Amino acid sequence: MAAEMADQPDVLARLVARRGECAAALEDLAGDDLKGIVIVARGSSDYAAVYGRYLLELRARRPVTLAAPSLVTHYGARTPMEGWLAVAVSQSGRTPEITNVLKTLASDGARTLAITNGRDSPLAAAADWTLHLDAGDERAVPATKTFTAQLAAVALLAEALGDTAWPDDHWAAAVKAVRDVLQDDERPIAAARRLDGADRLVTIGRGLLFGVALEVALKARETTGILAEGWSSSDYRHGPIAASGEHVPAVAVHAAGPTQDDVRELVADLRERGSLILEITDDEAADLPIPSGLPEALAALPAAVRAQQLALALSLARGLDPDTPAGLSKVTAT
Amino acid sequence: MAAEMADQPDVLARLVARRGECAAALEDLAGDDLKGIVIVARGSSDYAAVYGRYLLELRARRPVTLAAPSLVTHYGARTPMEGWLAVAVSQSGRTPEITNVLKTLASDGARTLAITNGRDSPLAAAADWTLHLDAGDERAVPATKTFTAQLAAVALLAEALGDTAWPDDHWAAAVKAVRDVLQDDERPIAAARRLDGADRLVTIGRGLLFGVALEVALKARETTGILAEGWSSSDYRHGPIAASGEHVPAVAVHAAGPTQDDVRELVADLRERGSLILEITDDEAADLPIPSGLPEALAALPAAVRAQQLALALSLARGLDPDTPAGLSKVTAT
Repeated sequence: MAAEMADQPDVLARLVARRGECAAALEDLAGDDLKGIVIVARGSSDYAAVYGRYLLELRARRPVTLAAPSLVTHYGARTPMEGWLAVAVSQSGRTPEITNVLKTLASDGARTLAITNGRDSPLAAAADWTLHLDAGDERAVPATKTFTAQLAAVALLAEALGDTAWPDDHWAAAVKAVRDVLQDDERPIAAARRLDGADRLVTIGRGLLFGVALEVALKARETTGILAEGWSSSDYRHGPIAASGEHVPAVAVHAAGPTQDDVRELVADLRERGSLILEITDDEAADLPIPSGLPEALAALPAAVRAQQLALALSLARGLDPDTPAGLSKVTAT
Repeated sequence: MAAEMADQPDVLARLVARRGECAAALEDLAGDDLKGIVIVARGSSDYAAVYGRYLLELRARRPVTLAAPSLVTHYGARTPMEGWLAVAVSQSGRTPEITNVLKTLASDGARTLAITNGRDSPLAAAADWTLHLDAGDERAVPATKTFTAQLAAVALLAEALGDTAWPDDHWAAAVKAVRDVLQDDERPIAAARRLDGADRLVTIGRGLLFGVALEVALKARETTGILAEGWSSSDYRHGPIAASGEHVPAVAVHAAGPTQDDVRELVADLRERGSLILEITDDEAADLPIPSGLPEALAALPAAVRAQQLALALSLARGLDPDTPAGLSKVTAT
């Protein structure tokens, strides 16, 4: 897991170098009459999809929906999808359900795009165009470099479908931020120590960083078996907050942007209730800092690396093997 | 809470009696050229929205998406929505965020519909048409009769937008099922006893009953403060299953339909891992049985009542006040 995490700056830099190729492909694929975007994913890829649900709607100015795969695979739903772009996100490209749903959307009229690390996968073969992550083999069960590559791929789609692209130096700063964060392995160890003995964890984010908050929970859960769950700061106030307190530590993910104040307010509320809070944020004094000055959408990349570091440190602190968590396999057939 | 639960058969019967009115309104509102449906909701209303996300796409054969409110309220996203139907679901109709998002969708071209119990609420005033739940005052913080009324309202929309309606006797059977379930308060007490001392709970469902599984978790969490979370059976296998075992009891929700076998298989897997499982299902021998023979979509109604009964019994068994859980208020401003 650690070795694969270390690959991330190179993987991301290679993807970013293909911005032009991606923009050209999307121009062909989406055309001028794009009606909407549907994203098909499961597991941690689903959290890259949540990121895309926000970012693609914001930048492409089209309705975006997350597919409900069982509608296709179990209920036989058929929905006219002419003019829609279907985007499947899968690390392996070998989850039959995802390929099956993408093919059905295509037969209902959607144009299709795959984001996958499976170069010769059935998913890549099924899609009209594939944005290959080319992240190299990922052997550890918890997805790391393929997850951040998916986030970057989604951001590439968003800028290709939107009116404006991020300047080159923003992308370069995002890759550098990932590199810088990877060089700090002290603070994740200290953060994991503060969670010593914790058997539950709540993670919180909102908007463009909500998907990363979900990923923090999934990674912690996968590598340690603790019960961890992610919430948007807004939904958390609608009920789950009743169960918070000193026995429920929380990890909050936020960065400069329109939702940062909202997450900070919830963090303050939870501190008042006695919760231990760790923050992944663009403040050098934070428990798990990320560099400041990035567009919020690109801050998702170093923030996701902090999630990985925390999960790795939690796992090692508990004497577990982060690469092969109990009870999980890499490809899930559902 | 118990008194409001007891109102449900009457509330539902009154709603069902307005099927014709609802069908006529939807014919005006949706017209022949409906492009898609966006649902706006938060909290337990969001779980009625999840139910709608499946059922409306299945029956109306149009793409359905759940709104991401922060895109509107925080990011200033503006998406062309001509031809779309925006459906806001809110018990009180007084959550400013929901009304704000609905108004923005309207100004972007969507036709709008509200499902609310707030007859004179800002939300009802903002919508092109309102399906009033008319469930009477709901004073307990955990939503009960307004939640099942929302499910029924969503089902009314689904049949109005679809090709075929459920026969009258299916609706009558669903209302009777709610009445029958309410008369059995012994089994919820026995089920709660089996969860004595549990400080966490996982709930599982899929497809049309996934929203109810989420509601089981929310209700248990609201009334007792235990850490409870809902998962689709498919997503649960993609990671969270690693954290399951004898220390994580589960509640599974399923009924005759295309996804029942999938949920049953997961139940069997979890039993093998030593988990205590309670089932809300259409089997008289289940921990929390619901009547069999209903269409799966309408089985959601008695299943949701079982969720309420379980939450109420858990709360009382712990000496808590189910009506006013610590740390929650009825209307949340975000």
